[in-house]
This record gives sequence, structure tokens and C-alpha cells, in this order.
Amino acid sequence: MNATTTSSQRAASARKAASDLLARIRIVASCTDKPGEILRTFLSGAMEEVHRRIRPWLECAGMSVNVDSAGNLRGVYASESGKSSPALLIGSHLDTVRNAGAYDGVLGVLMGLALVEGLGGRRMPFAIEVIGFSDEEGTRFGVPFLGSRALAGTLSDVKLLGSKDASGVSVREAIAQYRADHPEATASSLTPETAAYLEFHIEQGPVLESLNLPLGIVESIVGQSRCHLVFQGCSGHAGTSPMALRHDALAAAAVWMTRCESIASGVEGLVATVGQISVEPGSINIIPGVARCSLDVRHADDAVRRRAVEALLEEARAIAVVRGLSIETEEYHTQPAVQLGSAVTSLAEKAARDAGFRPIRMTSGAGHDAMVMAPHLPAAMIFLRSPGGISHHPDERVLPEDVEAAILAGLCFLEEFTTFVTEKESRQRA
Amino acid sequence: MNATTTSSQRAASARKAASDLLARIRIVASCTDKPGEILRTFLSGAMEEVHRRIRPWLECAGMSVNVDSAGNLRGVYASESGKSSPALLIGSHLDTVRNAGAYDGVLGVLMGLALVEGLGGRRMPFAIEVIGFSDEEGTRFGVPFLGSRALAGTLSDVKLLGSKDASGVSVREAIAQYRADHPEATASSLTPETAAYLEFHIEQGPVLESLNLPLGIVESIVGQSRCHLVFQGCSGHAGTSPMALRHDALAAAAVWMTRCESIASGVEGLVATVGQISVEPGSINIIPGVARCSLDVRHADDAVRRRAVEALLEEARAIAVVRGLSIETEEYHTQPAVQLGSAVTSLAEKAARDAGFRPIRMTSGAGHDAMVMAPHLPAAMIFLRSPGGISHHPDERVLPEDVEAAILAGLCFLEEFTTFVTEKESRQRA
Repeated sequence: MNATTTSSQRAASARKAASDLLARIRIVASCTDKPGEILRTFLSGAMEEVHRRIRPWLECAGMSVNVDSAGNLRGVYASESGKSSPALLIGSHLDTVRNAGAYDGVLGVLMGLALVEGLGGRRMPFAIEVIGFSDEEGTRFGVPFLGSRALAGTLSDVKLLGSKDASGVSVREAIAQYRADHPEATASSLTPETAAYLEFHIEQGPVLESLNLPLGIVESIVGQSRCHLVFQGCSGHAGTSPMALRHDALAAAAVWMTRCESIASGVEGLVATVGQISVEPGSINIIPGVARCSLDVRHADDAVRRRAVEALLEEARAIAVVRGLSIETEEYHTQPAVQLGSAVTSLAEKAARDAGFRPIRMTSGAGHDAMVMAPHLPAAMIFLRSPGGISHHPDERVLPEDVEAAILAGLCFLEEFTTFVTEKESRQRA
Repeated sequence: MNATTTSSQRAASARKAASDLLARIRIVASCTDKPGEILRTFLSGAMEEVHRRIRPWLECAGMSVNVDSAGNLRGVYASESGKSSPALLIGSHLDTVRNAGAYDGVLGVLMGLALVEGLGGRRMPFAIEVIGFSDEEGTRFGVPFLGSRALAGTLSDVKLLGSKDASGVSVREAIAQYRADHPEATASSLTPETAAYLEFHIEQGPVLESLNLPLGIVESIVGQSRCHLVFQGCSGHAGTSPMALRHDALAAAAVWMTRCESIASGVEGLVATVGQISVEPGSINIIPGVARCSLDVRHADDAVRRRAVEALLEEARAIAVVRGLSIETEEYHTQPAVQLGSAVTSLAEKAARDAGFRPIRMTSGAGHDAMVMAPHLPAAMIFLRSPGGISHHPDERVLPEDVEAAILAGLCFLEEFTTFVTEKESRQRA
């Protein structure tokens, strides 16, 4: 797209590019480890098939392609100088959850390709590396971000490397085997020239749809606490135990769940979810003696999240005491929030505005590869509206016009990024 | 025990009789269809073993014993005239739930034996028939009261007779097979002279214990409604869905459960229990889209119960509407209440008082064979305190001193019953 391209030509190109992207997503969706649903896991056969499918598309767009030793698919579109220029990394992940939708992850990888194609062969003062991470969901090993952690050089945690899949193979062993089978694989590390990371991703939530907006700029990714609670009351005959003499574990849990909802609703940006509940003995005519609940709490501000977890668990303890129950609570997993408030995020926001959209700044409630990259690189994330807020489900969708919007914003981003790198280089020289 | 027996002699005899009864309960508890737990079902091998154990005890006490064609164990202690006298039926059931306690049912059968033994060979103006019903719990076929229904002549419902056990055998087939295997079995029907039914049973609830009383007189058995509710909301990502945009099925169910507890607590004698709950998809990081709950509602007054069920289901529908959820509710089983307010109940109350106890009148929240007998005979039930309110559980217990109390009250009942039958006969002659 050169400077004389008119606005309507740009729109027509973006429409065509969006249509191509969606057709490619359907092709990628046909690569699965489990017929009948979409499933692609770390270093699996379906993942290699996806690489075989995408590789020629990247090559046709002028990129040199390799798969690194952590199974990340990488295509480099050289800069106008041909070497040693700053590079912009654009991508997301190619793996999926079980029974997945078609868009989560792969959309961000193919957006990188669409943007390079959108340059129509023009070279920029910076290189562009399109990356398809080999694991973000953690489906195979229960630990997420294996691809981006390898790239960032943070895949060294012993416990993490020892995590095993369903057949007892550890992360360490799986990677070693992959390297043995693929001696051509390049090192999994960031190219030293990489200057920033840009990720497009579906929102996976209802916020943009509720505001009738196609695009959002992620300024933070929430931190998360996961807890287990066990309310221990006293089971009893549903007919012979008067209400006043009961120690019903589920009744206590119910009161607590209403408090969770009410406390979370009262704090801007806080979410608290009880996604699992089970009772014992679980008979229609027996008062539950035990109720087990999960609790997932998230907020962009770690202090707010910590206070909320404390308040919610304290609430549960207080309810148990009043009702003569005992209770166990455990916060067994925490993950701090990540801020994406870099200059590149402002650039993404400006690009979306330049492309004619009104982007809002928002918090991501889900984890993304950008979380892993942000400590190492200025990172930006652009969300696309999720119809119905649906994700991690075969009904997951994206609107073609929103993909067009993302392509238009992405192309503006490339222009803005030229100025950004040029100015940065001037500053460094000065 | 003759008229000159002193109070302390009576107490000592009752203590000995209670100790014998508890020893026999331990023997009966060793007869099980499933090693490692107590389980005896309709017409099972363990049930035949129990009959072999109990039969000589009944015979030694002077009774003639048979097993009828519905598997009920029956021992008749003839009256002083030897024939055609009014008869008092005393008993309960010999079958159990799965993983049962030792006392539920069998205590009432062995109480009949203990009372006959307590007469020390003395014959009364009425016959005493001790009965051990073959099925009250409904463990084998899912339909209860097979033994007492056969005796009462109400085992004719086609749907009931067609109910099948786990191996596909129907009630009808099981009984036919039993009759073929036991040609000696007598007809299962009430002896025409039977004048009243008396059942001793553990309370299976905490009321007597909370009042520090050994015995209670049951004046009604509650009616019961069983319902299913399905709250249908919208599942979603626990991180990406703001509280205000959720349609969390479990959060709605939680509010409803707190309302159930509060509504039931506000009505004297009403109990409402949510004993089962499950959510879909049931992941810690996914908002529940579906919550399924059971509801068990009981009250001694059918109109109160019906109004309560209506109010509780209406409450659920209102909560669903406010939260933008859909809901399905079904009341799939109802059983009307049974009143035990006969003259024989007053007799039981007087007997307990004569024996030196302060009996309270109470409602049974559980179903009993007396429910089936009450439409056909004046029926009375005496509850024994349940330590901890525990029943249908291996920890089910009864206090030896409460068994003594029951024996003393039962012996007083036999004396009162003499007057009762004599007066009744006089009235009939007049």
C-alpha cells in the first residue's frame, strides 16, 4: 500500500485481506489431534501439520521461515537495509484448548502474515518477525506459555520442566525428543534486534461487544488467585432435621457465594468466580455435610486482588463460625498482574485511531503470550470483539469487519512504528 | 412381670432386656449382602439369614413363626383364650439402606420380641404378632414399603410391580420366584383380628436429643415433595467477563438456596433441603452456564407443603428472570402426609408417662411402615432418641438407657392395651 492509495482502496484491500485470513483460519482449524473437535497441543502431529500449512504462506509473502527448538514457527521479513535492523515481533499462539474455537491464538499469527502481505512487498526500516508460539494454553502439560517462555529464556524452572503429560513424558523430555527429531531446528531465543512485541487476539469476553466497538487496546493483564474452600458441616436426614438444628454445608456455601458476587461487583474491575462446586453425600434426601467450592479472583492491581481474596476467604470463615461449621481455605495459585503501559501500547492506540476507530483501553482478564514478553520487550496487545463473548468453545467467532478493522489498524501501526524506531535510533545516536 | 414386681425389679429386668436386644442387633447386623458394610435387601440371601437367626428367638419366647409370601417374618404370641382374640401387631422392617446403621428398622422388630419376653410367659386377652417387614427402604427396587404394602393389600399398583432392580428383575417377578422357592410361605395379609399397629423406631433426627428426652410419640408423618431445578445461564471466561455482564447459573442458584433456607426457617415444622447440586462446565476458570439443584420439601400439613413448594419454585423463577436466565422446575414426586392421631397413639403417650417418662408429641420427617398401616389400622409410633441425630450411616446409634425406657413404656402399653381392647369389646357388645 503506497502513499497514494485512497481510503476506499485501503478498505477494499483490507476486506480482501480479512477474507483471506478467515479462509486460512478455517484451513488451520482442520488440523487437529482429535477428529471431531479442534485440539492442537505442544509439539503434536497437528501442530507440525499447521506448520506445513502456514510455512508456504509466509514464504510467499517474502519471509524466511524456520521452526525453533521449542516448536515456535518463525517467519522473518527483512528490513529495507537487509540486516541488523530493529525488528518488530508480531504473533500469538498456534496451540488450542480441548474442543476449542478456531480463532483463539491463530488469528494473531495470521494477522502478522496479513500485515506483511499488506505492505505489498514494501520493505520497512525495521524487520518484521511473525511468530506462532507452540504452547500458550498449557493443554498438554498443565503449564502454560511453553513457547513464549522458551523464546524469552524463562523456560528453566525445574518444577515446570518436570511437569508431565498424560503419558508421563516431561516437558524436558518432550523438548529433548523434539530437538533430536528436528536437528534443523534453530535456537529458541529472541533475536537481539527485536524492539517490540505486538499481539492481536480475540477478546474472549463481552466488553467490546457491549460497547459496540471492534477493537480494544490492552493496557494490563490481570493477576489471578485460585483458591479451594471446603465447608464442613454435618450431614443429616432431610426429613428429620429441623431447619434450626442443621449445619448444612451447602446452605453456608450458598450464603458465601452470594457474598462473593456482591463483594466483587462492588469493586471496579474485580471478578470473582465460583466455577466448581460439589457436595457430599449428594443425595436428594440428605443434608449436605460437605461443600467444596473453587474460587478464581482476578484484578489488574495485585493489591486490590490480594485484599479481595483476603476479604472473600474471611467472609467464608465468618459464615462458617456463625453456623457452627468448620472450614478449610487454601489459596493454591497466584499470578501477578502485568502492565502493558509502554510507548508501544500508545502507538497501538494511535494506530487504531488513525485507522478510524475509537479504541478503548482495557484490561485483559485472560493470560496471553504478551504477559511473558512484556518483562523483556515493550509489548502491545490489540483485542478484537468476541461475538457473544464466547471463547474456548466451538461457537467462538470473530466478525469479518472487525478483522478488517484490525488489519487497517495494524497497517497504521507499521507506519507509526517506523517513526518510533527512527526517533528511538536518533535518540540513541544523540 | 406380675403385679407384685417392684419398680427396681422392673428396672433391672428392663436393663437386662435392653442389653439382650442390643446383643441381638449386633448379630443381625452381621447378616449382610455386602461384606464390609450393612446391606439387606428385599428377599435377599442376608434377609433369609436374618430370618434363620431371629426365628428361634421368637419360638423360644412362645411364638409360632412363619414367613409370608412377601418375605415378612411373622411370629404370633397367642392370647390367653388361645384363638380369635383381637391382636396387636408390633414391628418394623428388617431391610436396610446401603452402608446402613445397625438400628434402623430391626430395633422395632426386636422390641416386639423383648415385650413378649417381658411378659414372662403371661398370656394377654389379646394376641401379639411380631412382624419384621421385608422391605421399607426400597433399596433393591427404588420403591419403598414392599413388605407393609403386601400385608396391607396395597401392593397392586402396576407401575410399582413393574419396577426393576439392577439386574432387570421386576418386583412382580421377584415375588413370584420367592413363592415358587418357598411353597411353605403363608399368605401375606393382615390377620382379620388385628386391632392395632405399634412401631418402635429410632428418631433418625436430632429433636429428642436436643430436648434431652429418650422417647417421643409420633403424631404425624410428613408429606413430601421432590423437585428438580435447572438454572440455565451463560458460561463464560472467568477472567474476561465483568461481573455486571454475567449470567452465572450458580450465582443465581446460590441466591435461591439462601431464600429456600430462609423461607423454610420461617414456617413452623417446614423443612426444605437442597441435597444435590452440579454445575456445567464445572471448571475453576469458567462461569457456570448451568446449575442443577434438587429440592426436598416436607411438612405434616399437605397444604403448607404445597404452598411452600409453590413459593420456592416461584422464587427460583423470579431470580432467574431478574438475572436474565432461563429455568426449568419440576415437582416429580409427592407423597401426602399421614396422621397417627388415633386412640392408640394416646395410649402410647399414656404408657410412656406411666413408665416414668415425659414423652413429647412429634412429627416424623421420615417415612415409616406405620404410614402404610395407618389407613388400615389404628397405628402408633414411639421414637427413641438418635445420638447426634445420625442415621443411614454406620455411626447410627441408640443409647442402652433409651432402649430400657422403650421396653418399660412398651410393657405399660401392653397393660393399657388390655383395658383398650376390653373396653372396645364391651362397647361393641353394648
